[in-house]
Amino acid sequence: MRSHFADRLCAAVRAKGNAVCVGIDPRWDMLPLEVRRRHAGSDLENVAEAFAEFGLRILEVVAPLVPVVKPQSAFFEACGPAGMLALRRILRRAHELGLMTILDNKRNDIASTAEAYADAALAGVLHEGKRLPVWGADALTINPYLGRDAIEPFLQSARRCQGGVFVLVRTSNKGAGQFQDLLGDGKPFFQHVGEAVAKWAGENLGKCGYGDVGAVVGATHPAELAMLRALLPQVVFLVPGFGAQGGSAKDVSPAFRSDGLGAIINSSRGIIASFPPEDPNWEVAVEKATRETIAALMRP
Amino acid sequence: MRSHFADRLCAAVRAKGNAVCVGIDPRWDMLPLEVRRRHAGSDLENVAEAFAEFGLRILEVVAPLVPVVKPQSAFFEACGPAGMLALRRILRRAHELGLMTILDNKRNDIASTAEAYADAALAGVLHEGKRLPVWGADALTINPYLGRDAIEPFLQSARRCQGGVFVLVRTSNKGAGQFQDLLGDGKPFFQHVGEAVAKWAGENLGKCGYGDVGAVVGATHPAELAMLRALLPQVVFLVPGFGAQGGSAKDVSPAFRSDGLGAIINSSRGIIASFPPEDPNWEVAVEKATRETIAALMRP
Repeated sequence: MRSHFADRLCAAVRAKGNAVCVGIDPRWDMLPLEVRRRHAGSDLENVAEAFAEFGLRILEVVAPLVPVVKPQSAFFEACGPAGMLALRRILRRAHELGLMTILDNKRNDIASTAEAYADAALAGVLHEGKRLPVWGADALTINPYLGRDAIEPFLQSARRCQGGVFVLVRTSNKGAGQFQDLLGDGKPFFQHVGEAVAKWAGENLGKCGYGDVGAVVGATHPAELAMLRALLPQVVFLVPGFGAQGGSAKDVSPAFRSDGLGAIINSSRGIIASFPPEDPNWEVAVEKATRETIAALMRP
Repeated sequence: MRSHFADRLCAAVRAKGNAVCVGIDPRWDMLPLEVRRRHAGSDLENVAEAFAEFGLRILEVVAPLVPVVKPQSAFFEACGPAGMLALRRILRRAHELGLMTILDNKRNDIASTAEAYADAALAGVLHEGKRLPVWGADALTINPYLGRDAIEPFLQSARRCQGGVFVLVRTSNKGAGQFQDLLGDGKPFFQHVGEAVAKWAGENLGKCGYGDVGAVVGATHPAELAMLRALLPQVVFLVPGFGAQGGSAKDVSPAFRSDGLGAIINSSRGIIASFPPEDPNWEVAVEKATRETIAALMRP
């Protein structure tokens, strides 16, 4: 049995010397032209093939440099069943390359339905007494609106396979506050969620002192990030919104604990769309953008 | 161009004389033995084939009786890419049979990621200037936690194709209240969400007086259901939790407006698991259970 999710994550961050997560969010219009040309055609199966090729080539570039990748399920789902095949190939290859994987699919439901989502992403689906892997990610993202009993199947699946769960706490969009900032008992709603996440994380701590339940907290809200960091010392933060969405290295620095651990900073477009589509040497640009992202985050 | 989502829904309810939605939530252990035997095998491709056969045969039984079906995406996703093929076959066949479809996948994300989920479910994905259908549902379910700007892409996709969106307001699980009942400004959180849904629904009303944004409100909370019905007169309610989850016909009656419209009552296990697996005439049992569900809901 592999070790605790947070211990594996901390070890990967230490081994690579940085906490950068590369978001695999392919969009047709930003793919290299040479990839688009090879998969030209008017149906979504071609798009899915292009996403697979692009994602797999991104993995080869970033695997020596970063500890984690985060495929965005939505773009693969938008290609239909063929897209899900592409997603599976990318997740499998990432593991072969020693990368940790966070499946960003923001799932949520109740009871056996939540269990189906959770087991598909993490522990594998139980069929005739055997667990069959589906996406086999190290962690997934989930939405907290339905409450702990609906989150329980995700925790159980994670704990069965030493996986992890990242709960949306404060999202990176401009309008995140419409509901997340509503005050209840003098505290914003996202803080109620954050405090619940801290409790769930505390149920199963790794040797590194972090739990297997993390929090998604956008880089675009540095004040909230600092407040949550202080309140949730045992929670690993997954921080989207760096780069293309406007968050700077300074903005994300409060996400880290004083030991330099405790956060994973995601960059998607800043890395995987860091070249003009006509650039034949786009993988060189991706490597350069990855190194620059790492450097920027190491001296905020 | 087809007509407004709510007008199509009201017309379907009037045509069938009831507001029952059949949830297509297949689980291997509840499938008829004859279906399981035909798709025996140790991998998830077989399970997906069994789910497809079962779901398609359910559609043939219920299509003459009810206006709407609601496939639960989680169970199909749990079979991997083959499961998504099964889901697509079921959605397509449902439309051929004149059934309206709600894809229950509780999606949520921001910006272009939300757009990818929305267009996949509803209007079709834009590729090289053409919209390509993916799931082609009439509506999907979404989670409101991220706020209006994150919901906007779902509304836009729905409005492009006269589709609909059902926003989780009060879910049917026991622990729904952990966050949904938190009081902000003297009102529970779910009421804030409900009032926002009412506003969004009011932006695009059909001739029937209902909007294209509905609310998911569990049958297991009749008091909240009655309160929301009074507050949200232009919002169609999708009501899960009837039957197997404990909600009775009396519990769901407050979901309807005095004109008998305004709600869709979902039953999943009460219909699609209404027989012992060894019953060779399971389709007869499904038809009987569907008729009984309709009868129960017509005289609460």
